[in-house]
Amino acid sequence: MTDHYELTMLQATLASGHADRRCVFEAFARRLPEGRRYGVVAGTGRFLEALADFTFGPEEIDFLRETAVVNDQTLEWLANYRFTGDIWGYAEGECYFPGSPLLIVESTFAEGVILETLALSILNFDSAVAAAASRMTATAGDRPCIEMGSRRTHEEAALAAARAAYIAGFGSTSNLEAGRRHAIPTKGTAAHSFTLLHDSERESFASQLDSLGLNTTLLVDTYDVTNAVELAVELAGPELGGVRLDSGDLVSQAHEVRAQLDGLGATDTRIVVTSDLDEFAIAALQAAPVDAYGVGTRVVTGSGAPAAGLVYKLVAREDANGQLEGVAKKSQDKASVGGRKHALRRRNVTGVAHEERIGIDIAPVDDGDDRDLLVQLVRGGEVLVPTDAQSAREHHARSRAELPTKGLRLSHGEPAIRTVYEDEASRSEVEED
Amino acid sequence: MTDHYELTMLQATLASGHADRRCVFEAFARRLPEGRRYGVVAGTGRFLEALADFTFGPEEIDFLRETAVVNDQTLEWLANYRFTGDIWGYAEGECYFPGSPLLIVESTFAEGVILETLALSILNFDSAVAAAASRMTATAGDRPCIEMGSRRTHEEAALAAARAAYIAGFGSTSNLEAGRRHAIPTKGTAAHSFTLLHDSERESFASQLDSLGLNTTLLVDTYDVTNAVELAVELAGPELGGVRLDSGDLVSQAHEVRAQLDGLGATDTRIVVTSDLDEFAIAALQAAPVDAYGVGTRVVTGSGAPAAGLVYKLVAREDANGQLEGVAKKSQDKASVGGRKHALRRRNVTGVAHEERIGIDIAPVDDGDDRDLLVQLVRGGEVLVPTDAQSAREHHARSRAELPTKGLRLSHGEPAIRTVYEDEASRSEVEED
Repeated sequence: MTDHYELTMLQATLASGHADRRCVFEAFARRLPEGRRYGVVAGTGRFLEALADFTFGPEEIDFLRETAVVNDQTLEWLANYRFTGDIWGYAEGECYFPGSPLLIVESTFAEGVILETLALSILNFDSAVAAAASRMTATAGDRPCIEMGSRRTHEEAALAAARAAYIAGFGSTSNLEAGRRHAIPTKGTAAHSFTLLHDSERESFASQLDSLGLNTTLLVDTYDVTNAVELAVELAGPELGGVRLDSGDLVSQAHEVRAQLDGLGATDTRIVVTSDLDEFAIAALQAAPVDAYGVGTRVVTGSGAPAAGLVYKLVAREDANGQLEGVAKKSQDKASVGGRKHALRRRNVTGVAHEERIGIDIAPVDDGDDRDLLVQLVRGGEVLVPTDAQSAREHHARSRAELPTKGLRLSHGEPAIRTVYEDEASRSEVEED
Repeated sequence: MTDHYELTMLQATLASGHADRRCVFEAFARRLPEGRRYGVVAGTGRFLEALADFTFGPEEIDFLRETAVVNDQTLEWLANYRFTGDIWGYAEGECYFPGSPLLIVESTFAEGVILETLALSILNFDSAVAAAASRMTATAGDRPCIEMGSRRTHEEAALAAARAAYIAGFGSTSNLEAGRRHAIPTKGTAAHSFTLLHDSERESFASQLDSLGLNTTLLVDTYDVTNAVELAVELAGPELGGVRLDSGDLVSQAHEVRAQLDGLGATDTRIVVTSDLDEFAIAALQAAPVDAYGVGTRVVTGSGAPAAGLVYKLVAREDANGQLEGVAKKSQDKASVGGRKHALRRRNVTGVAHEERIGIDIAPVDDGDDRDLLVQLVRGGEVLVPTDAQSAREHHARSRAELPTKGLRLSHGEPAIRTVYEDEASRSEVEED
């Protein structure tokens, strides 16, 4: 899972003798998706796990030889490859802003260049889902969000999406394998096919209640919602766990169904809503009597921003004299900032974040209330940190709680805090464009 | 990789005795993504391969037992599960329209209901990529498109995206594992990091040419394009394979670079452009002297429609008398059409498609120029058709060639052909909303 050019560049540098130059690669976002006020880094744990497995086995080497992608010298190097460098990065779940150095890979050129596709695939997808999911959970407040989007994205991506959504505050997923692999609680109700299979809605509700108990959630919109709610309480009594609405005007229906349930004495029966929900639909439903949101397509596709826009760039390399030197391309609209980065989240005395301070080759000085953002993730090829979703979920909750309140608004806006660079020469402030 | 509710529905029907009712499930799109004129079914081959592996092993069963998702009767059924039914569907690569029955699963309720997530995950993702890719290749005409989006989507999804793009006419991919797994040609140039690693652009170009030969493609926008093109031809001579432009105004740059290359005698040197290309950017570049398009983010994320919007619905089931009966839900805005479908693409005498004719429980009659769309994919659990990308690629080219020319326009519009249903009672035409 590597791009062709990574290996041909490797071949050329092995030949020229520059493959072993010490380098620093950095993953960052030039900008947030349009109108977004913060990003959420996710996938770091998955990347670190994938790094341990990232080797070139006999089948891969044979393929590369048969297709003549690279020469024998390169194949031999690949067959012996294991990453032996250091990696620093933002803790998984951290909020980020334009220019935040989310991943810093310090290694030889050869070892670092071939990680580009792996690192970006994982971080771009997982961070896109987490950023969208975080806006949904921030909007939903205490009401739980259930990730139900597996069927709207690639089958393996679905597992990563469930994990990223959980990191960003979702309470559960519908995907059982995501539950097994990432220790996320799983939830489910019933589909319309279940109702249609039976000879009547009465028979289907009775079957579900018999088998799954009174605490189950009945889907009430297959035929007529009002009739179905009446039938549900008739069969289950006021202990009925919940009903699900999946179509129509959810706001008005939620009010009607809540009144009907309360009138029938089912005051504790929950109302779960689904049907193309996103952060905006959730906002519109917050004033309605809804107990949980089931979110599908829009969370697993990043709610309009399906890739986080992260890039992986060489920012420093050993020069002919053995010194590490910052490098940056000058391409129009895509210029990068050279140098090894350090990062501090500046906070005021009450703990509210107000600035992303990025030091170029120097560490910005903590003025007492700030928070260092870079964590060493890998030393000499060995992973140093936990890679589980639970730790990242807890970190995200803490990180998001520091944002100024304007950062959580759904309307289009600027990044919640500004990014400021400083370097040794100036220690002067240059605001990012 | 199954949704929680599929297994709890299974449990309830195993208890009620309805699990073995003969059923027909159908995957279809209620509508195309906004403004699109046709869809492209992709993923069928991957689904058929996944179906063979879709079993519940000891680790999965243990997880389901420990988490008490379902009871012991259900676990025993799952441990013995293998799909034994029949599946019909559109050939992979086929163009489709609203209501087209892309996949028809004929089995017991139990065997069919647990395939929902697997089938939809694969078809929704792969078809979203293929539909976007097809618009790009149709617009690019004879100019090859290279899929370079691996780093903008989940690492496994990247392989499926490369496959789907290839089916839709892309000529190659940058992803080596996609090349190995799906027999797609791989291509690559060089990254800015390669140039920056070296002490000068001259040194980096020389290194690449030495190792990879004159036919390589040099990236010329790291510093100054005009200087780089001059340097490239100075070092490689007029046999230089290609140059890549990855930033700035590609249309004007392509003209300038072509004139410069021609002036230097490098008349056969190709110009490859990349940088956030999509079908619209390709259209704008068609009048410029460009030789190949490298497309990344926009193709792997479906160019604005990252999920194809396919749903999987029960459309018929055995009733209490053992007869197969069409069923459909009545939910607001989400009503479905019951009955087992048949499908014909009506064509005029010159072979141009003009109607998607869908028979409900009956096969529409071919009037001589039409084409039957449903292929039996699985019989008694055994896959009957090839699952490779090459066959699907050839099928897509034939299917797209039948569309009326208005169907290939990029502007927002209605589906290229209308969908018409007919049934036994009426054989009357009811146009889809």
